[in-house]
Amino acid sequence: MSGWDRAALEALDGADPLAGFREQFQLREGLIYLDGNSLGALPRRTLARLEQTITQEWGEGLITSWLGADWINAPRRVGDKIARLLGAEPGEVVVADSTSVNLFKAITAALSLRPERTVILSETGNFPTDLYMMQGIAAFSGGRVRAEAVAGDMVLDRLGADVAVLLLTQVHYKTGAVRDMAEVTRRAHEAGALVIWDLSHSAGAIPVDLNGAGADFAVGCGYKFLNGGPGAPAYLFAARRHQAKAVPVLSGWMGHADPFAFEDAYRAAEGIERFLCGTPPILGVAALECGIDLIAEADMAALRAKSLQLGRVFMDLMDEHCAGLGFALVSPREDARRGSHVSYAHPEGYGMMQALKERGVIGDFRDPDVLRFGITPLYLRHVDMLEAVLRIREVCETRAWDDPRWAVRAAVT
Amino acid sequence: MSGWDRAALEALDGADPLAGFREQFQLREGLIYLDGNSLGALPRRTLARLEQTITQEWGEGLITSWLGADWINAPRRVGDKIARLLGAEPGEVVVADSTSVNLFKAITAALSLRPERTVILSETGNFPTDLYMMQGIAAFSGGRVRAEAVAGDMVLDRLGADVAVLLLTQVHYKTGAVRDMAEVTRRAHEAGALVIWDLSHSAGAIPVDLNGAGADFAVGCGYKFLNGGPGAPAYLFAARRHQAKAVPVLSGWMGHADPFAFEDAYRAAEGIERFLCGTPPILGVAALECGIDLIAEADMAALRAKSLQLGRVFMDLMDEHCAGLGFALVSPREDARRGSHVSYAHPEGYGMMQALKERGVIGDFRDPDVLRFGITPLYLRHVDMLEAVLRIREVCETRAWDDPRWAVRAAVT
Repeated sequence: MSGWDRAALEALDGADPLAGFREQFQLREGLIYLDGNSLGALPRRTLARLEQTITQEWGEGLITSWLGADWINAPRRVGDKIARLLGAEPGEVVVADSTSVNLFKAITAALSLRPERTVILSETGNFPTDLYMMQGIAAFSGGRVRAEAVAGDMVLDRLGADVAVLLLTQVHYKTGAVRDMAEVTRRAHEAGALVIWDLSHSAGAIPVDLNGAGADFAVGCGYKFLNGGPGAPAYLFAARRHQAKAVPVLSGWMGHADPFAFEDAYRAAEGIERFLCGTPPILGVAALECGIDLIAEADMAALRAKSLQLGRVFMDLMDEHCAGLGFALVSPREDARRGSHVSYAHPEGYGMMQALKERGVIGDFRDPDVLRFGITPLYLRHVDMLEAVLRIREVCETRAWDDPRWAVRAAVT
Repeated sequence: MSGWDRAALEALDGADPLAGFREQFQLREGLIYLDGNSLGALPRRTLARLEQTITQEWGEGLITSWLGADWINAPRRVGDKIARLLGAEPGEVVVADSTSVNLFKAITAALSLRPERTVILSETGNFPTDLYMMQGIAAFSGGRVRAEAVAGDMVLDRLGADVAVLLLTQVHYKTGAVRDMAEVTRRAHEAGALVIWDLSHSAGAIPVDLNGAGADFAVGCGYKFLNGGPGAPAYLFAARRHQAKAVPVLSGWMGHADPFAFEDAYRAAEGIERFLCGTPPILGVAALECGIDLIAEADMAALRAKSLQLGRVFMDLMDEHCAGLGFALVSPREDARRGSHVSYAHPEGYGMMQALKERGVIGDFRDPDVLRFGITPLYLRHVDMLEAVLRIREVCETRAWDDPRWAVRAAVT
């Protein structure tokens, strides 16, 4: 017995101070959505905001909305709101581009601050785009810098006089394991390196304190726990002390000190705006702002507490109902080391996730055998954990993964 | 007399085969919108499409819409539609990122195909972001490549054994002058250089034949004549013959040969997909697709003929009504050399444009003294040209630019 029967879970839901947030989202009855760490659910307020942005700001205001609807400051305005979730100051975060493109900006900015060093360091098994962007920069540098990835537990030992920048994800996309941001940053700084934190699985899910940790740069995506919508714009953090010296390689007109002077020569803006590049994606920024405004209404400590409790309940129920069915816990069981998703390996993982989706439990499959369950405290209930585990057990008992439709994996998982 | 009285213009509107398109746009009565080359008007169909994308695809479909609503192929699907406007083949155009970021991709891709050459060449006075992106790449190359801009009429003479890539805008953002794409491309190829065409003021406004001209790369924005909305995603063209050899520097996960294999090492996708980088911005792509679908219903030759006629009418009426009021035509008068906007220099240009906006005539001001009037054939009428010119004359006669509100120029013009 896990101790979590339905009545106990309903009691927890009844006492949940965050329970009211669920109705702020469009979530159909019966669905257990455990994929808010891939694509967050739709805040109900987003549709009205987009209608206004489209018909009033674009349709009526037309070009005058760059000033009239403050489109021109949207990347900075929404960046300042995100900053409050990250332990950053106003003027240290800007919304722009994709996480991948922002990784490029942050890595090259860090390299410009450590011109005598030659290594971009990360861990093997980091989220692929982090590694790929490093590799692209190294290849283009013509031998000046190298991209190097070592096993996660070897990263700190690898720090040395040649390492310019260390790129790590705070919450690992597959395992959910959390890095100690303050300690890693301290160690990297001791070795003379800068650190870039990928916060894609952190922001809006766990408390983040970039300035408390002395972080240099950070990036993250808007479409997971921030509920900004599919392919939402991403964000970039640059500590204020680095801004005036970091050289933007993606030196587009929106990062110019005076974009509408239309000068021939690039002059970087003084502050965080130098990390802007092209024209900001207004529809995407508007949707993202709705997600940010919503999560800003929640207390981050309460979110973290509920996320951890939901994760514990889920693992306890898996222990109780699915023991001996082939699951191996991939995520850390210890609260302090676990982010806001719980992953299990299972040899039938791919087919199992397809069968679960048909039964209204949506999570992710990640190569080669990982089932990833996102624990979004803003809209999940404690009883959802029980319902999900019971459906997982049913899939196992009926071997529902044995289905010719899933014999070949889809290109998108 | 220009010969264009109101009755004659109304007759032209009555016989206009494209007249029906106007009602496909949200345009308030009395507004003369001459800024479709900065931000295209809102197609009426866009709101319903976004409502569906938000509430059905995102809200209901959630993560499953990557396959279920074909989000994953949206950049390629919409790219293929844009290709038809550009004289390109399916699989040669992809929707992604901003024009600035795509410039970076195209320039670095071209450099990878001409590794023995050292110069990125453009013209002074090109749209700033084109020059800035060149400068950023040169600075990051550590001396390996140089960015060089020469006067527009010297560009072809500057071609030489050191020029790797020539970057030009087909229709100049300020003057509206059109480059001969086929001839310039031929001359560049003779000199061993590749050419990147910026089509931001061309696509959807004038016929473009990239493959007919033997073009190598092209980029362009989605928010001008394509009516994709503020900050709409941009597009990139890479001729098929270059795709397998061009090295992507922005090597993000969506450009990987197998993104969902989550491999540690980057392997570029075979085709145009290697120019993808981060997760595609689905809301922006959906809005862009509405604009593309609408313009695809029009005959491009008819669009060009109407655009040229509207431009001629506008210049004739300016000659008739505004002679001696201080205007100097900046754009080519000759049809073959003029794109789809008409610009005039005037010493009071900034204040005049503010006064015009208050009188319902919206155009652009461009430093230092240029009034730019976009001629969008999809939704402008011949009578609009007369109405605009009469209001311009009224502003001059009343010296309406003399207004303390406009004594200091706004940061955004």
